[in-house]
Amino acid sequence: MRLNERGELSLLKEIQKRFKGRAKDIATGIGDDCAVVIPRKEKLLLTTDMMVEGVHFDFAFTTHFQIGFKIISVNVSDIFAMGGTPRFVLLDIAAPEDTDEDSLDSLFEGMEKAFRHYHITLVGGDLSASESFVVSATLIGYAKKPVLRSGARPGDGIYITGNLGDSACGLELLKRIKRPVSLETGEKIHTPLGWSTMEPLLRRHLLTEVKKPGKLAGIATAMIDVSDGLFIDLYRLCEESRVGARICMKQLPLSIQMRKAASFLGREPDVFATSGGEDYELLFTAPPRRRVNAACIGEITDSERVIVERDGSERPFSLEGYQHWH
Amino acid sequence: MRLNERGELSLLKEIQKRFKGRAKDIATGIGDDCAVVIPRKEKLLLTTDMMVEGVHFDFAFTTHFQIGFKIISVNVSDIFAMGGTPRFVLLDIAAPEDTDEDSLDSLFEGMEKAFRHYHITLVGGDLSASESFVVSATLIGYAKKPVLRSGARPGDGIYITGNLGDSACGLELLKRIKRPVSLETGEKIHTPLGWSTMEPLLRRHLLTEVKKPGKLAGIATAMIDVSDGLFIDLYRLCEESRVGARICMKQLPLSIQMRKAASFLGREPDVFATSGGEDYELLFTAPPRRRVNAACIGEITDSERVIVERDGSERPFSLEGYQHWH
Repeated sequence: MRLNERGELSLLKEIQKRFKGRAKDIATGIGDDCAVVIPRKEKLLLTTDMMVEGVHFDFAFTTHFQIGFKIISVNVSDIFAMGGTPRFVLLDIAAPEDTDEDSLDSLFEGMEKAFRHYHITLVGGDLSASESFVVSATLIGYAKKPVLRSGARPGDGIYITGNLGDSACGLELLKRIKRPVSLETGEKIHTPLGWSTMEPLLRRHLLTEVKKPGKLAGIATAMIDVSDGLFIDLYRLCEESRVGARICMKQLPLSIQMRKAASFLGREPDVFATSGGEDYELLFTAPPRRRVNAACIGEITDSERVIVERDGSERPFSLEGYQHWH
Repeated sequence: MRLNERGELSLLKEIQKRFKGRAKDIATGIGDDCAVVIPRKEKLLLTTDMMVEGVHFDFAFTTHFQIGFKIISVNVSDIFAMGGTPRFVLLDIAAPEDTDEDSLDSLFEGMEKAFRHYHITLVGGDLSASESFVVSATLIGYAKKPVLRSGARPGDGIYITGNLGDSACGLELLKRIKRPVSLETGEKIHTPLGWSTMEPLLRRHLLTEVKKPGKLAGIATAMIDVSDGLFIDLYRLCEESRVGARICMKQLPLSIQMRKAASFLGREPDVFATSGGEDYELLFTAPPRRRVNAACIGEITDSERVIVERDGSERPFSLEGYQHWH
């Protein structure tokens, strides 16, 4: 049965049934004019992110399950980047009328998996027909002491929680494969590169699991998630903190798989790592000599410029060429 | 300058500048990974609504200003329908790349007018290119004691806060006019029906201002806003409360302008009033003999059916024919 045959009410009931999760802090869930929740005595974090077919993704390269999982992950990433805990989500889905039932179910399954993974609960949403597929999520979370982008001070170390460039490299591999890969159902692909090299890169791009900040929330002086690329996101952090930065290229954590795949693709690993985006690792600063469980990649300076050091030479990073409309 | 020439960063900065409203309960507004707000010691209300070009509206009949105002009003209506106070809003806008600057400015002006009117503050959002225009808003509000749909009891009176059918009648007029009417800039139209008749009906549809519940929040046993039409929204309230209702058609408040315009259009005023939708009046129930500043249109029963009484005869309302996918 296709979307336009189900009718709005029956679809809403199905979603209500699927996501009927009860929790102590939810007085009224999906089904009334609003959800009613009992907030904690902490600060509230509010964020929203949207994904548009043909702009952020293409069903020629990704499954509905993966889009469902990803729209939640990218929003959770914003909460984690404040050192917070995600809790409630509201979803708006606009889908073409001829979207089939399996695709919708797959989308909901991807979302459901993310809800369980991040311990969040769906409390509201809206559904509509549309020409192309648009999904937007608003996430509400908590933090006792949110970590802003603006707290970096000269002398702070700059850290990253994990490997850079895997996601962008995974996307490039996907463009060669030219069709969706259902990692969620255990699909494997035979290529000269080898599945053990490809799988983590594809997974990083298609089924991104973002990392909890954990103790970082109490250590970091400033934090941001790497969504658009290391350089541009570092630039944003520096701009908000009114500081500069010096990044040492050889300290960037790059996975063996990414190096291997980049070589296979004839691409530069450093470009994936610094400009690729969608890694959703946490980029943060911490006072010098503070012991931190993350890779140190540079230092905050008082120059108001981002300087990149490579093989003994230095060049400034400029924002030009980084503005993109997506 | 068109959307695709501006670049995402400059557009975000412009929005930040336009909506930079500071308030005591906002620790961090637009510009970080999340907004940080300090919640009141009340229950939180969460709601979201989306409007899609070609499904919910058509720029052949409406201005960008009106869509900006309306996406906020429809969300505020959900908060009011819980007896609550709206406070923070997050916005996702997907617009075709060739959207011109005037249209975008007009959209933002409509939203800004609504923010001021309802005393709410924009704290986050996302922008994207897309094939067609999609705008979604998530609104966060408060209520000490939210009024649910489920509290109606047999014997309660059924009330409506204002005239029914004006919005649907306004839409029909608009379909005859066949172009947008810029009420926000004082545009007037000369027609045989007369502007003083048309204006309030068009305004109801194009620039809906939803009503604060005020004292109703402490009186109503159940409440819902009339978005899809009196009958279907009453049916929903009854279903959640597990009760029935008896509605007396002659008690429905219909405006003189709507009756006059319906006659001009050769349409039945009662159909606009009961099935038209988008009136965004509050439909609520209250204990018998409670003094209430609203029109009494019927009574809650224990039959679990919605009965409509007209000219001495009765007929049950059925949900069939009301399921629509939008």
